[in-house]
Amino acid sequence: MTIAAALARRLEGLVPIGLGPQGTTRLAWTPELAQAEAWFAAQAADVGLEVQRDPAGSLWACPPPPAPWWGVGSHLDSVRDGGRHDGALGVAAGFEIAARSEGLPLAVLAFTDEEGARFNTPTFGSRALVGRLDVADALARTDDEGVTLADAMAGAGVDPGGLAGAPAWLDRLRGFVELHIDQTRDLEVAGAPVGVVRALASRRRLRIDVEGHADHAGTTRGADRHDALAAAARVIVAAGELAAGELEMVATASRIVVEPNAFTTVPRHVRLWLDARAPSGDALDAWRRALDAHAAEVAAAGGVQVAILVEAGSAGVVFDGAVRDALAVAALRAGAGVADLLCYAGHDAGVIGERLPAGMLFVRNPTGVSHAPQEEVAVEDAAIGVQVMVDALRTLA
Amino acid sequence: MTIAAALARRLEGLVPIGLGPQGTTRLAWTPELAQAEAWFAAQAADVGLEVQRDPAGSLWACPPPPAPWWGVGSHLDSVRDGGRHDGALGVAAGFEIAARSEGLPLAVLAFTDEEGARFNTPTFGSRALVGRLDVADALARTDDEGVTLADAMAGAGVDPGGLAGAPAWLDRLRGFVELHIDQTRDLEVAGAPVGVVRALASRRRLRIDVEGHADHAGTTRGADRHDALAAAARVIVAAGELAAGELEMVATASRIVVEPNAFTTVPRHVRLWLDARAPSGDALDAWRRALDAHAAEVAAAGGVQVAILVEAGSAGVVFDGAVRDALAVAALRAGAGVADLLCYAGHDAGVIGERLPAGMLFVRNPTGVSHAPQEEVAVEDAAIGVQVMVDALRTLA
Repeated sequence: MTIAAALARRLEGLVPIGLGPQGTTRLAWTPELAQAEAWFAAQAADVGLEVQRDPAGSLWACPPPPAPWWGVGSHLDSVRDGGRHDGALGVAAGFEIAARSEGLPLAVLAFTDEEGARFNTPTFGSRALVGRLDVADALARTDDEGVTLADAMAGAGVDPGGLAGAPAWLDRLRGFVELHIDQTRDLEVAGAPVGVVRALASRRRLRIDVEGHADHAGTTRGADRHDALAAAARVIVAAGELAAGELEMVATASRIVVEPNAFTTVPRHVRLWLDARAPSGDALDAWRRALDAHAAEVAAAGGVQVAILVEAGSAGVVFDGAVRDALAVAALRAGAGVADLLCYAGHDAGVIGERLPAGMLFVRNPTGVSHAPQEEVAVEDAAIGVQVMVDALRTLA
Repeated sequence: MTIAAALARRLEGLVPIGLGPQGTTRLAWTPELAQAEAWFAAQAADVGLEVQRDPAGSLWACPPPPAPWWGVGSHLDSVRDGGRHDGALGVAAGFEIAARSEGLPLAVLAFTDEEGARFNTPTFGSRALVGRLDVADALARTDDEGVTLADAMAGAGVDPGGLAGAPAWLDRLRGFVELHIDQTRDLEVAGAPVGVVRALASRRRLRIDVEGHADHAGTTRGADRHDALAAAARVIVAAGELAAGELEMVATASRIVVEPNAFTTVPRHVRLWLDARAPSGDALDAWRRALDAHAAEVAAAGGVQVAILVEAGSAGVVFDGAVRDALAVAALRAGAGVADLLCYAGHDAGVIGERLPAGMLFVRNPTGVSHAPQEEVAVEDAAIGVQVMVDALRTLA
């Protein structure tokens, strides 16, 4: 069987899980995720690997030789109404890479909750593994229904009390490589089926609280209002305009919660999240300073209080040179490579790359769309990715 | 007993119902409303009136003589986390007015769902009574939990199938007067305990749908985005600025629902509600035309679609001259009156006023706050209001 046909067969069992009319939804610690993990176990059995679960709930399909091994894989969870290949393709490809890497001690990994869509805890599994997860804070976080992460974890059969033991598992890895769909049109524009990632951008997630006053939407005179949503709208506009002035920077007001959100009441409180990304932390700092100044003006003019805090972030990472070289040489051998991609998303490989040699290979996505069902990948392109990874791992291992 | 003491005693039983740390919440067709209705029945028994429920669920405390009667009252429902006197004071005052109007055939009314906070159906009971409620549309509306109004109504023991029969009850009334807290500081600034309302402002509730595209918040280049929330924020800012340019107009972005509202996804869709009020329909029309033009620019620049529709509205009403005169003369006699208030809120009396003689008397609210627990009224001011209403009703009846 061709790599493409084998990979398509592996994906067949995974893609329908959590797939609805608006896209794929497989949140962490849910029945959908448990279904995907059952698929993982079947794949591991198919290639002769033994499944183990680490203290953060990540799945490891381990080879017979003793650790340390090279790891390959991605994640099985998705955002709400996301694409079908984000994460899933990397795990399925991991099994196909393992199947075609006889003799190499290779573990296939599916990290827990990479997207963080349910508890705002992105790269949960990989951060736990490198010891960079604030365990107490993470376990206390609640989802939209008020369920704590600790309870959700226990409900999925993973002991939250053991989470602090996750870093002990990192010694099992020599390094980690991840195949992932391109989340831009960069490879499509370059006409390349795959590309090597040089670095992940610097990222920051800001939470902005605007505190105003609830008044009657009809009877309160304009000058007497303390309208939290009117002020938040000005902050959103400013955040976008300030980002547009910085080279290669993007800022997104992605989530907003308004109280009381009633038809005839002036909004009392807005909690707003801004997702900002740039090639460097310095660029983010400059944007943040300008935003603070603007928010202070908005607060004074609107009679509201605006508080901004950093809820999550990453300094970014430059991937290991030897891993990048091995992937680039393998890609050139396959006649397919583009090197030096700068990626604006966070990934488990970026987290592992803080501690161990790590790298990423992207597969062309003609639409460039990500976190939505319009995301697209040709299995033939992914098959080239599998071939390149197998070749690179022979060099590295 | 003084009027103030008697009124305070009536309110004692009503104010605690639905009162929480954030304010008063008594939504239509809920157990809290049923508790308030039990209070209504006890009050009716106290003044010798017989309780009947009309097909819209509004409560009538009817006097022994045959109809038609003058009606007096207000509503028992509230917004979420609202004030304790909005509506409630007018019903309690209604019973005290009835108690002190021996010989006058007076019915005390509590209209269903004046605020419309649960199903977006403001002045439900009075609109049903004047035959201006779109019955099929109203019954099909759903609350935040997906419950239809028809089911909620049936759950509260009122047959939704009978709703179309409500207008037959209007013949029971000769007219209607409503005592209500001032929702501005107008009376406070004027130093007057009560004031006669001349007219209700023209109002319009717009629903704005912004349709964009869900993309990854990090990896999608600025130029490739179709960000529904970024565009909606510009519309909110414009709506406020355009209203500020119109004399005596207010516009409020009061409610917003964002999809998918996720931390790392560019917002795909925003549904936004704008509440706009002005002394005339012409002023609202001019504002709307300017908003449409601005929204079209925002849509073109942001790569999104913006659709604006009128979801609810009122042309406004000028109250009956004879009713206003009777209230004004009585207020002057009490040494307390300010006439000619323009009110920016909707009220059941405004709806009834489209068909029958009607009027309103406002009671001073020192904070001017409404739809929030900071709303305030002195029972002594309200007692003057009761006295003025009794006096005016003797003239009218």
